[in-house]
Amino acid sequence: MTSSTDAPTYGYSARKESHLKRLRRIEGQVRGLQRMVDEDKYCIDILTQVAAATKALQSFSLELLDEHLGHCVVDAAQKGGDEAQEKVREASEAIARLVRS
Amino acid sequence: MTSSTDAPTYGYSARKESHLKRLRRIEGQVRGLQRMVDEDKYCIDILTQVAAATKALQSFSLELLDEHLGHCVVDAAQKGGDEAQEKVREASEAIARLVRS
Amino acid sequence: MTSSTDAPTYGYSARKESHLKRLRRIEGQVRGLQRMVDEDKYCIDILTQVAAATKALQSFSLELLDEHLGHCVVDAAQKGGDEAQEKVREASEAIARLVRS
Amino acid sequence: MTSSTDAPTYGYSARKESHLKRLRRIEGQVRGLQRMVDEDKYCIDILTQVAAATKALQSFSLELLDEHLGHCVVDAAQKGGDEAQEKVREASEAIARLVRS
Repeated sequence: MTSSTDAPTYGYSARKESHLKRLRRIEGQVRGLQRMVDEDKYCIDILTQVAAATKALQSFSLELLDEHLGHCVVDAAQKGGDEAQEKVREASEAIARLVRS
Repeated sequence: MTSSTDAPTYGYSARKESHLKRLRRIEGQVRGLQRMVDEDKYCIDILTQVAAATKALQSFSLELLDEHLGHCVVDAAQKGGDEAQEKVREASEAIARLVRS
Repeated sequence: MTSSTDAPTYGYSARKESHLKRLRRIEGQVRGLQRMVDEDKYCIDILTQVAAATKALQSFSLELLDEHLGHCVVDAAQKGGDEAQEKVREASEAIARLVRS
Repeated sequence: MTSSTDAPTYGYSARKESHLKRLRRIEGQVRGLQRMVDEDKYCIDILTQVAAATKALQSFSLELLDEHLGHCVVDAAQKGGDEAQEKVREASEAIARLVRS
């Protein structure tokens, strides 16, 4: 969706580095879970760490979604036309997947 | 957001009757839960009904939110100014409460 | 599951009154939601109240489940036989419905 | 909970390999997310993948919890004494963290 000369304009681009850092930390949490299973740690302690990783993924989605609403949805609304409603529909579906996951 | 003579124009107004119907059904589910507890029904069966009521409340929120994005947020974006960002921030907070509830 | 002379022995019976009180409060929250929709309250404020009612239903399930594990599951385990595994399977399914709702 | 000579007997040990495989797949999903952010993929597509990873972590917890109930909690109940109630309390707290995450 980006042309050869333009920088991408998605909402999250500005915070790309912070997102990557966050995802690398989550990757580390998942590797930590593997270590815990491998070392036969107590199930309840593993579950606590799974909940922490799940929460971290959720916060990441919420931030991404906030940026998406503030950029893509608002931009589409300002351009007018059908695109705004299409963007809203798409965002609503993403929110439903998030709430149900 | 309501002018002095008009009925309010929130996104959900158009579907007010359908929302009220849905909420009355959820009220009925909660009353059904009281009956189940009162008649000492089996805990697992009660839990199944609680999950159904929770899902119904969640679907209601998702619909309300979809209407809010499609009306209030899009309208604010089209008017321009700071209001759009304020509406997005507010919607994002509501989504976070939803995801975490 | 209750004989004609015995009081029922589900885990939650002891706290029946407290459960009914809690459910009546949730019913009140759902009626409050109907009033808010009826009076065309602002969508975000309605969403905040829906999240509160959802959380209340969830706390109710968690308490019910805790009592179920502490009574029905523990009792079945003490009796021995296949019933314990059946109760665990049933509880796990209820937990999955809860997590996904 | 492990004797001096035996391998640990937590419920999940029997399925250790399957758990590790599952977690490695989730690690791959998180690395895939980093790639998507790095390549400026569309936010909605990233959100879909975050929801998939979150669901995978949740299924993992549910399986772990099921094994925990079927082994540690049932075993404690059969031994009798206070340990069963302690195990139930601990499991209920883990379930609450899961439901709220």
